[in-house]
Amino acid sequence: MRVVALGGGRGLQATLGALRAITEDVTAVVTVADDGGSSGRLRRELGLLPPGDLRKALTALAGPDAWREVFEHRFGGTGALAGHAVGNLLIAGLIEVVGDPVEALAAAARLLGVTGRVLPMSTEPLDIEADVTGLDEDPSTVRRIRGQVAVATTPGRVHRIRLRSATRRGEPPTACPDAVAAVLGADVVLLGPGSWFTSVLPHLLVPELHDALVRTSATRVVVLNLVPQAGETAGFSPEQHLEVLSAHAPGLRVDAVVADADAVTTPDRLRRSAAAMGARAWLDSVTADSAPERHDPVALGATLARAIAAVRGG
Amino acid sequence: MRVVALGGGRGLQATLGALRAITEDVTAVVTVADDGGSSGRLRRELGLLPPGDLRKALTALAGPDAWREVFEHRFGGTGALAGHAVGNLLIAGLIEVVGDPVEALAAAARLLGVTGRVLPMSTEPLDIEADVTGLDEDPSTVRRIRGQVAVATTPGRVHRIRLRSATRRGEPPTACPDAVAAVLGADVVLLGPGSWFTSVLPHLLVPELHDALVRTSATRVVVLNLVPQAGETAGFSPEQHLEVLSAHAPGLRVDAVVADADAVTTPDRLRRSAAAMGARAWLDSVTADSAPERHDPVALGATLARAIAAVRGG
Repeated sequence: MRVVALGGGRGLQATLGALRAITEDVTAVVTVADDGGSSGRLRRELGLLPPGDLRKALTALAGPDAWREVFEHRFGGTGALAGHAVGNLLIAGLIEVVGDPVEALAAAARLLGVTGRVLPMSTEPLDIEADVTGLDEDPSTVRRIRGQVAVATTPGRVHRIRLRSATRRGEPPTACPDAVAAVLGADVVLLGPGSWFTSVLPHLLVPELHDALVRTSATRVVVLNLVPQAGETAGFSPEQHLEVLSAHAPGLRVDAVVADADAVTTPDRLRRSAAAMGARAWLDSVTADSAPERHDPVALGATLARAIAAVRGG
Repeated sequence: MRVVALGGGRGLQATLGALRAITEDVTAVVTVADDGGSSGRLRRELGLLPPGDLRKALTALAGPDAWREVFEHRFGGTGALAGHAVGNLLIAGLIEVVGDPVEALAAAARLLGVTGRVLPMSTEPLDIEADVTGLDEDPSTVRRIRGQVAVATTPGRVHRIRLRSATRRGEPPTACPDAVAAVLGADVVLLGPGSWFTSVLPHLLVPELHDALVRTSATRVVVLNLVPQAGETAGFSPEQHLEVLSAHAPGLRVDAVVADADAVTTPDRLRRSAAAMGARAWLDSVTADSAPERHDPVALGATLARAIAAVRGG
């Protein structure tokens, strides 16, 4: 079963961890709009794809090798390297030497013993812009906020995001052709969980990737977050997450929506929102015992397997 | 045939390149007193072994893999990473994660498909100090110069160097036990070519390594430089290089001294200096056609093979 998981950051790590138990044929399609931390520094300094979310996806699919730990290791101290993840520096070096980010990531994947593939959603760095209210005296004033960090942490309410090429100012983003092909050839595509506006929705705003997600014959599954994210989705209910998704991709039909039963206070509303997109809602206990804000990979994997089997008649 | 090559920088790269044609069992024992460039920045920032000479030895023994190029790639631009070799950052990360530099270098060697081994001469960063004259009005005034870069570029005349632990202030340096064992178990040990005071002599100033070099039953070969190095050995004749070596390690006997015939203007004097250490001098054409300051690996390999065979009766 060919599964494509779209996302970024910890949310994508959770899905990839859960998918390992279901299939060996996993392709991660990763956001490249990050502008914070080690990734943001590398992106600004070298003009490359921000490597952090790519690194996280690689290590989520990696074997139990020491390289996994080296990739995730961050330099300490107070110098120029402080905070840089070694894997970010290596991915940046690989991209500079190899040229093609897809080939560079394949080399990193071989080193890490990755089962599956990690692709960027675009081969160029992207910028997120958001229309945000609640930042002014007049609560209806809409302000344009730019950058992943600014959007993710805004105290205002995010209404809509746009994606732009960072290198070709103002131009729409181009998709990584391998990512488009992966979505079109998939049996299952997964959206979420993760920072909704800055890790999950961006894939729908790359025109060729949006079209592929709408056209693909794959089973489409949305995995909702366990808790609203302070900043970009503070106060958003699970059904509001779906409505925002729908507003950014009106033509997108979904087959299954997976949510944690305890995180949904109005299950009937969620079922209605899911049904409006064509989907059945699967409410299960998928939270990790150790950390209520994280998915348990085994439980999430089991629910995903059941939801997928129900849709595909497996 | 087990060969141990001691040195650093480009000189060690030349020997390692030449040795590849002679044997598959090569161990490089590398200086760790560098304080310049990318290595010096990493050493100061992270308190680790300077990785640059270790990286150069690894890539000199590496297979024709893309990782070799990635290791040697330097970040450009004008930012915090400018000038850092990717391999230096990776070696630094490996050492931080793995802990033991010998194990960390073994992991890097596996990645690069290295034939042989690369060991640091000490598992702690070291400082070079030199007694230098000619820096004052009075030409006999002796000044103490500290640091590899300062010594390598001094406009004065270097008379003697000392080596100190950089972390245990003023203490004598400790040898890497694996390097000592490699020298004691070798069939052949090679000293030089390279920056004489800052890459070749330091090995003799680590007490346990000095003792191993004196005690080993291995054939001892010294490879002289092609041209005097501006700074530390400006104006030094080939025989003066040998005399300096002898002055820093009076108990050291040598079996063969290899020099480029064109670089030796007084061959009889060189033969006498070699004989004083127990060695036969081998004067051959070992210079690269493309770069008169570099050894030709094939020609150097052939001369080394003949010199070693003559000593060992092979």
